[in-house]
This record gives sequence, C-alpha cells and structure tokens, in this order.
Amino acid sequence: MPEAPKTLEGWYCLHDFRRIDWPRWKALVPERRQEIVAEARAFLEAAEAARDADEGASALYRVVGHKADLMWLHLRPRPEDLAAIEGAFARTALADFTTRPDSFVSVTELSFHEAQARGGALPDDPFQVPFIRARLKPQIPDVPYVTFYPMNKRRGEHQNWFLEPPEERARMMRSHGSIGHKYHGIVQQMITGAVGLDDWEWGVTLFAQDALQFKKLVYEMRFDEVSARFAEFGPFWLGIRVKPPQLEALLRV
Amino acid sequence: MPEAPKTLEGWYCLHDFRRIDWPRWKALVPERRQEIVAEARAFLEAAEAARDADEGASALYRVVGHKADLMWLHLRPRPEDLAAIEGAFARTALADFTTRPDSFVSVTELSFHEAQARGGALPDDPFQVPFIRARLKPQIPDVPYVTFYPMNKRRGEHQNWFLEPPEERARMMRSHGSIGHKYHGIVQQMITGAVGLDDWEWGVTLFAQDALQFKKLVYEMRFDEVSARFAEFGPFWLGIRVKPPQLEALLRV
Amino acid sequence: MPEAPKTLEGWYCLHDFRRIDWPRWKALVPERRQEIVAEARAFLEAAEAARDADEGASALYRVVGHKADLMWLHLRPRPEDLAAIEGAFARTALADFTTRPDSFVSVTELSFHEAQARGGALPDDPFQVPFIRARLKPQIPDVPYVTFYPMNKRRGEHQNWFLEPPEERARMMRSHGSIGHKYHGIVQQMITGAVGLDDWEWGVTLFAQDALQFKKLVYEMRFDEVSARFAEFGPFWLGIRVKPPQLEALLRV
Amino acid sequence: MPEAPKTLEGWYCLHDFRRIDWPRWKALVPERRQEIVAEARAFLEAAEAARDADEGASALYRVVGHKADLMWLHLRPRPEDLAAIEGAFARTALADFTTRPDSFVSVTELSFHEAQARGGALPDDPFQVPFIRARLKPQIPDVPYVTFYPMNKRRGEHQNWFLEPPEERARMMRSHGSIGHKYHGIVQQMITGAVGLDDWEWGVTLFAQDALQFKKLVYEMRFDEVSARFAEFGPFWLGIRVKPPQLEALLRV
Amino acid sequence: MPEAPKTLEGWYCLHDFRRIDWPRWKALVPERRQEIVAEARAFLEAAEAARDADEGASALYRVVGHKADLMWLHLRPRPEDLAAIEGAFARTALADFTTRPDSFVSVTELSFHEAQARGGALPDDPFQVPFIRARLKPQIPDVPYVTFYPMNKRRGEHQNWFLEPPEERARMMRSHGSIGHKYHGIVQQMITGAVGLDDWEWGVTLFAQDALQFKKLVYEMRFDEVSARFAEFGPFWLGIRVKPPQLEALLRV
Repeated sequence: MPEAPKTLEGWYCLHDFRRIDWPRWKALVPERRQEIVAEARAFLEAAEAARDADEGASALYRVVGHKADLMWLHLRPRPEDLAAIEGAFARTALADFTTRPDSFVSVTELSFHEAQARGGALPDDPFQVPFIRARLKPQIPDVPYVTFYPMNKRRGEHQNWFLEPPEERARMMRSHGSIGHKYHGIVQQMITGAVGLDDWEWGVTLFAQDALQFKKLVYEMRFDEVSARFAEFGPFWLGIRVKPPQLEALLRV
Repeated sequence: MPEAPKTLEGWYCLHDFRRIDWPRWKALVPERRQEIVAEARAFLEAAEAARDADEGASALYRVVGHKADLMWLHLRPRPEDLAAIEGAFARTALADFTTRPDSFVSVTELSFHEAQARGGALPDDPFQVPFIRARLKPQIPDVPYVTFYPMNKRRGEHQNWFLEPPEERARMMRSHGSIGHKYHGIVQQMITGAVGLDDWEWGVTLFAQDALQFKKLVYEMRFDEVSARFAEFGPFWLGIRVKPPQLEALLRV
Repeated sequence: MPEAPKTLEGWYCLHDFRRIDWPRWKALVPERRQEIVAEARAFLEAAEAARDADEGASALYRVVGHKADLMWLHLRPRPEDLAAIEGAFARTALADFTTRPDSFVSVTELSFHEAQARGGALPDDPFQVPFIRARLKPQIPDVPYVTFYPMNKRRGEHQNWFLEPPEERARMMRSHGSIGHKYHGIVQQMITGAVGLDDWEWGVTLFAQDALQFKKLVYEMRFDEVSARFAEFGPFWLGIRVKPPQLEALLRV
Repeated sequence: MPEAPKTLEGWYCLHDFRRIDWPRWKALVPERRQEIVAEARAFLEAAEAARDADEGASALYRVVGHKADLMWLHLRPRPEDLAAIEGAFARTALADFTTRPDSFVSVTELSFHEAQARGGALPDDPFQVPFIRARLKPQIPDVPYVTFYPMNKRRGEHQNWFLEPPEERARMMRSHGSIGHKYHGIVQQMITGAVGLDDWEWGVTLFAQDALQFKKLVYEMRFDEVSARFAEFGPFWLGIRVKPPQLEALLRV
Repeated sequence: MPEAPKTLEGWYCLHDFRRIDWPRWKALVPERRQEIVAEARAFLEAAEAARDADEGASALYRVVGHKADLMWLHLRPRPEDLAAIEGAFARTALADFTTRPDSFVSVTELSFHEAQARGGALPDDPFQVPFIRARLKPQIPDVPYVTFYPMNKRRGEHQNWFLEPPEERARMMRSHGSIGHKYHGIVQQMITGAVGLDDWEWGVTLFAQDALQFKKLVYEMRFDEVSARFAEFGPFWLGIRVKPPQLEALLRV
C-alpha cells in the first residue's frame, strides 16, 4: 500500500463568498447605507489586522461575474477562530444584504518533502524556519488580483493518483512545482488542504499583479503530467482586492 | 454470487443540518431572542438526555462554512423517534429562523466479522457485549470537533466493490481498519449504514480533540487500497460542539 | 438486436413528495389549523377510498430527513386520474403550507416472463388472475414503514444491460427475484415502470413491519449480479405510514 | 473524418414549462380569477391559431408530477416569433402566477437521407413535398397525451456516435426507424434538433391516444442498438392536452 | 511533457445573463416603467460606445427560453472594467427587476500558431496587425443572432487532449479551423479563454444573420475529430440582438 505523504499544516483558512442583494441595498436611505459601510469598513480593518485572534490574516476581494460579488479570505489558528469571524460578519449590518453562494474550509499545507528539499532537516518547531512560516502562516500579498479554485486528485477506474507509486507521485509533483517556480515573483500561490474538512481535497489561491498571468500559469499547468492525468477542478473565482478605503466606492449607489 | 456481509444494527441516526437566517434573527427584539434561546437550550438539554425516547444520544455542533450553521446529531431506537425529535425541533421557535440544506438518515452498524474478531461467538443478545453495545448504542464523545461525510463503495464498470470476492473484501477492510486503530484515542469514529434508507450507503462521523487529526486520518485512508479503489465521498461537514451553556453565545447578536 | 421483454401494466402511480412550511403553519391561529387539518383528513380518507376514481389506492407517509416531510402514494387507472388527485390536493388549504421537492410518475408493471412463470398461459384478461391483479392493481400493505427509490439499468460504455443477451438478462433477473422471495412476508415490494414517463426507468416501493429489513434486503441485493453490475439508484425516501386519525398529531403544534 | 449528415429544417420550436403558484392563485377573489382565465383562454386560442405569426402551431398540456404543471408547445417560423410568443404569455396575468422550471429551444428536423428514402430526389423547395411539409411544419395531433424528452448521442471515451462510420450510423438509424414504424398510427413523433441552440442535441415529442404506448415504444427502443449504445436521455415530461374550453376547469379552485 | 500552446490575449469579456421578473415589472405604474426604460436605454447606448473605459465593445441580446431573458456582452481592457460595468448595471433601476442565472468571465484569445499562420512573424506590438487586432479587440458584428456556449477539452482517462502530442493537437485544430472557414461570411466567431478565470476553459460566441447556420456549423463540427473526441460542452444560449431603440418594445407591457 502506498503511504500518504507527510504534511505540515498552519493556519485554518476560510474562503467566504457573498452575493450582494443590490435592490434591497439600494432601497436604503443614504444615511443608513453610510452607517453600514462605516461598520463594514471597521470590520474589514479589524479582520486584516486579525484583531479577533492571536494571529492571522484577512483580505476582501470583489468577484467578477454572477457567482459572487465578494470573497472574504480569512486565515486563523483554529477552526473556532474561523467560526467566530464568520459569525462576527453575520452580525454586521452589511451581511444582512448578502447571501452565501459558496465557501471553502481548509488549512495551509506544506509537504515534508518540499519542506526538507528547501530547508533540510526540520527543527522541532518547523515554524522557526522562515520559508515554512511564510508558507503556513502566510501574509496576504499586496497585489490587486486573486483567483481561487478547489481541486481533487483523480481516483478514476484507470487513472488513480492514490494508487501511483510514491516515487512516481514525487516525480510528477517536482515537475509540477517547476512550473510554479517559472512564475516566481509573478504569481504567488497559497496551497491549502481540505481532506476531511470540505468537499474538495485542496484549495489553490493565486495572487498576482496581472490577472492574465493566472490564465498563463493555469493553462501551462494543464499540460503538465500530474494535472493532465490527475487533476479535477472545481469552480474558479476571479477577484480584485478591496482595501478598507475602497469599500465605500464599491458600495456606493 | 458474492454474499452480503452480515451486519448488526443499533440506533437509528439523524444528521440534521440547519442554516440560520441571521437577518431575521437579528431583527427580533432582544427579549424575544432571549425567550427563544432559553427554549432552544431546554430542547438541547432534553435531547442530550434523550428524554423523548427510551434511550439514545444527541449533540449539537456549529458548522464552519456556508453549507450549514448547525448540525444536530440524534441517535434513537426507532425511525419514528427520529421523526418525533425532528418534528419537536420544528415546533421550537428557533427552528423558524433556520432552513434545512441537508440531512442524513442511517442506523449504527457493525459487521459480524468485526464483532466476532473482537468478541468471539456472539451471544443471543449481542448488546450484552460491551464493545458491541458501545458501537451500536454509542455515547457521543465529549470532544470539541466533529466531521461527518457520507460515502459509497464504487460500483464502476471496471472497479466494483460488490463484485470483489469476499476474501478480497475482508482483506481490504482489515487493512483499512488498521489505519483506524492507529488513531485509537485520537479520533473516534461512528459508522452508520444507510443502504435502503438514504442516498448514500454509509455515514462516517468522526470525533476528535484536534480537528487536524481528521485531515491526517482521512488523508492517510485515501491511500489505503479500499478507499483508493472503491470509496466515493459525499460532502464533508466540519463542526464544533455546542453544549447547552454555549448556545446563548452562539446566538448572541 | 435483443428484443424488449414484454410487460403487463396496471394502475398509474404518483409518488408526490411535500415539505411542510412549518413557520407559516405555526403562525396560523389554532382554529384555522384545526379547519385545515379536518379538511386534509377528509381528503386523505377519500383518497384512501379512491372516491375520486373508479378504482385505486392511496396512502400518506411521513418522511424522515430534510428531503421531504410527506409522501403521498396514489395509484389510479389513468394519468388524468393522477393529475386530478394532484390538483385536488393543490386545492386543499394544507397544500398552501407545503412545497414539492420531488415526485415520480410511473405505472405498475409485471413482466410476461414472471406472469407466466407463476400463472402459466395468460387469459385474455390477465387481471382475472389473482396474482396478476394483486401485482398490477395492488392494495397498499397495512404496515408502518415504506421506502421508495427510483432506478435505472446501466447503459455504460462497457457494462450495458440493454446489450446483454435475453437469456443472460432472464438468468440474472431470476437470481435477483430469489432474494425478493427470501423476504416474502417480511418486505412487500411494488415495481412500477417509468420508461417514457419520468426521469428514471423504474420505481421500487418497499413496505415492511420493520424498517431495518429495507436495509437488509437492499444491501443483500447490492451484491446480486444484476444490481452490482447494472443498477443505478436515485434518492431513497424512508417513510412512516400516517393514517387519517394520525394526521392531527403529525400537524399539531 | 466522418461527414455530418445533411438535414432539412422547418419551424423553430419552444417547449415552455410552467409551475402554477397555487397558493397565490387561490388567494385571488373569484372575479379576478375569472378575468385571468378568460384572458388566458383567449391567449391559448390565438396561439393555437398562430395569429401572432405567418404560420405555426401551438398547444397546451397539463404535466403530471412536480416538475411542472403546464407545458406550452409553440412552433413558429423564426426565433423571434418564439421570443414574441414567450413574451406575450409573460404579459398575460396568468403568467404572474407561474414560474419557469425548464424550457427547450429547437427546430424541426428531417435528415436528407430519410427525406430521399421516402420522397426520392428533393425539389428546389422541399416544402412542396407533402411528407416533408408534414414533418417540418407539423400540425399538432389531436390526441390527449404527449411525452417530451431531450436527448444526446453519446460521445464517450469508447462509444462515440460521432466517430462511427457513416454507413454504420445509417444502418443503426434505419433499424431505429423501423421501431417507430411499428407504432405508426399509435404514436406520432416530432423530432427537433437543438445543436447550437440549447443544451441537448435533439428533442423528441411523442403524441398518442394511449399514454401506455409511450412506455412501450420508448422501452422497445431502449434495446435497439443505437439507443442502447449511444442515447443519453434528459428528463421526461408526461402531459395531457388542455384545449381552450378545458382551461377553466384546470384552473378552477 | 507536451508544452502549452502560446496564446495572445486582448480584451476581457463578460457574458452576463439576466432573467426579468415580469410580475414585479408589470406591477409598476407606466410612468415609472418609462423612466426605467429610458435609463436602461441610456446605459445600453453608453455601454455600446464603451464610454466607461478607454476602449471596448458591448451589446445586449434577448435570450429565448427559460434560462435567461437577456444577455449582456461586454468586452473591456481590464477585469476591473468588467467589474465596473457589471456594478454600473446593478445600479440601474432595471437591474432591480432582474436576477442573474449565469455569467462567464474570459478574455479574447488567439493562438500564436494561428496568428503566425495568417500574419507571419509577429511584430513587438501584435495589435498593429489588423487581423490580430480584429480578433483580440473585436467589434461586435451587426447581425441579429448570437449563440454562446462554454466548453472544455476532455481530460478523460483514455481520451485526454492535454496528453496528445503537440503535432497531433495542431493537426486536429487545423482541420477544425477549416470548418470555421467554410462558414466565413456566414457565421462569425469570437473565441475567449477562461482557464484560471471561470469554470470552463473556453467560451465560443457565434454571430450570424441566420440562426439556422449556428445549428449547421455546430453540428458539422461535432463530427470533426477534435470535437468528437475531446470537446465537452456547457449550456447553449440563443439570443436576438436588442439595439437601444428596440429596448422599449422588449420591455413594453
């Protein structure tokens, strides 16, 4: 029986999608909208500063297309921290003007193999290694675009990732990683694992200065052996960063 | 023709998922919310004590992500007991502020093979055997995290669990069980069967002190032959236990 | 080209699922609820007596889980009889407090092969044969539990029921039937055909004194060659019989 | 590369499904309902007479089961005629008491092969040939029952209709057609093509005096090679014709 | 490992589908409807002129069938331009009478291979080449009909586009293109890529004077090797162009 690759994990992660109920939002008197925006902006500032937990990171994105209008990205140490911030947003007035079409619950993940390849033998507290800390307790890059998609490794009747020999899996992942390296400094990626936590096995969150690079990177990977033979993709969500000062414009009527 | 493995069954089980309608809940006057919380807390206390039936067990969990806010877990002797407690909750005021995105109807299950492997020849009343009673009329572990997922065994055109020879099935299930044993004391699992009762064949409910162990266990099992070749998974639901004294905080606005 | 097995048909059949809108139902004044229950009870009594048609049978079941609260089962001679009783229920006040998550339109079916195996040469009016009449114009068994599921025979790229030689199909169906016979007196089954009428090819409605026997029977059949290789199952609905005098308790608030 | 079979096309076709919102409909005062029924009846009469276009045909059916209550069938020369009549119905008051669960946009279709097999060499204006005109600009048969289903030809990894040699496709379609001929005078069929227009490739609309013949015909075809190996079926909708004088009874409360 | 074909990209593209809430629209007083139509017409005129961005193109279509009533087609230089115009429409009063069943986010795309085959060596600014500019920053053709569908290239267990050798892929795409050329002047196509941006890999938007040509073209392509073996299609949407002066008639009650 092939053995499961060992992994390191860091912060739990919630991708929380919201649709805005524009007709109801627009029907408010301007003063009420102003109050709500102010509260929402304060919420966003507090979330970005992770004031609700010991540590963490958050960001808000505007999503293009009908699937959602907003994507909250929250990283926190424990599942109950995610539940708390999800609940805290539900208590804001803005949340009453949104619905929730989707979400994704996962945890940042790094394979032992990759950790050791880059950092050598792991210390007792792997978070002491800067590279590992950056991967598992990541800062959210200060770039305008994000794309998120969940994915599985195929367990087909003929092509089955989980029945591949470990060396084959390692070989394919190395090749896969080399595409990511080509985009170093252009596209930053955050890998989160959701096995046992949500409906897909992994989440991929990409950040970039130029949205076109998402297309270039994902298309290139699609021809890579491990993706071509084994990847199954969920929905893709393209977003544009919304910082606290930009929230008012987004919600202006 | 391969013969179906014989099974023992115990309590019927209902996983009852609920979304909270936060805007309407928040719109109530505080006094009304307080009354409703008090009623809901009394309901939860009575359910945990299974006061509505001869015996049983219940617990409430807060679910992370958009799929649900709450998961009721009810174990009772008869289907009509589940219908009764489902109906009793519908009659609480809190239920009027929830919708039902999903549920799962099943019955606790233990294979003869596993029962005999651990307990030898079965007495006329197998519930006399403590191990069997603990599996089929389980207490709900007093730990903070739960994860639940339904699953099928694949009946593919090439990989078909139900056409495997019985010895092969037994061999694979033994290997599968050994992973579960590795997590003894770390993750406790409850297996329920739903063939003929609900849309998936089995439900797996895992309980742990550390949510990360769900990911570790399920990921490890994914490389196990029987899962890799034959398991088909439904949605995964991650929850955090809500005991009666914690209900007020969960619903506080 | 394999020839289609010849079949006899009897009554058309409607499985009509309903969810109760509990919040709106509970919001009524008690007197109004009482009136509505009385009307619904009269409707159920009339339906059970098939007073709306020349002949037929009806029953009401309470469904466990979120998929539905009620399942109406109606058997009538013609499609327009089903449309009429469906419309008659829509005109009751209770229907205004329900939504319709699902339904199934089919017709009772018996294969010539099975009819002849049990009854020899068929007379001009096969309904003269008691066994045939009982199968095609069935009385609804007076037992507490029902389970219903629609199903198809697989038309896969490699495993294709409709390309199997007739003798092979007959052999597998005989073996399949022998499991049903094992449960004679324990689980009673009603087979209805829906090819050309609804989205699945067949409906299976099982009746029993003990709900656990549904699980035993369906699980045993799952290892049977014809099910293992060729059956595709839709949703499963578990219900508990509601007779007219029990309707009030079901709807009591 | 196999060449696409050449086809002739006639009228565009809209299958427009509607659910009736019974609670809101019943809540109207009787006078208002009467007005609305009168308007709807006039609409149906005008539609049947195709007064909204140069030519065409329409009919209304009552659908059994939860998927819909009504099916409008409209045949008109141009897509904008379908849009116009769809919009005209939206402007009736009855439409305000309906929702739209589904629809199908297609165009009547006849293969050159079949046209030539029956009519020899085609004239410049093939609509001069009565058989062709009847197939492509069909009158709606005056029989009580209809069944409709969309379908695709399979493009599987191993069984792929579009990679079969033309002679093989022609041979299988001839055999398929011979089943249809067996039902000549019993079931009348209208084939419409939707490639490039809607989500399925073809629509099959069957008309009969006896609804059971739909089941007999479709079941028989299911064993036919082309259906068994290559057909993929969408939902099936069974309907009962509603002529203008019958509309009032259908909507009576 | 096969290498990904290089591509050129131009404008980002949003297909934005809307259903009209007719009952609420009809309930308005005529004066209010008139105001709203005037605002919507002004919005459409401004969008067609791309007044909201440096450059771009927009058009509005009426969709036939229940899936939508309207399709907005917007082409703009940057994702935030799409977000802006999507948001601008949300701020019109007409949008309050619509819901959003679907959308598609993509970017115009041209393969290097095709660009070079037609234009020889590419200059530093490929948009200087008229053919390239016309493909990547396209004018919307002034014809009455549109059809749109998203698609993937199959990554099956046996038939996998992304594992085909590059020469094979190039050969199949050439053959595919030759069908498109046959329809030159009859059907104009716009190819947009959505890998990494939305749930399907490509969008195909076809424009024609005669809607029947969509069926002819797509059907012919279905027998083409690359489509037959590798294409997976999403929903198809047939629309009729609505120019600003026609908007009032579309919304007239």
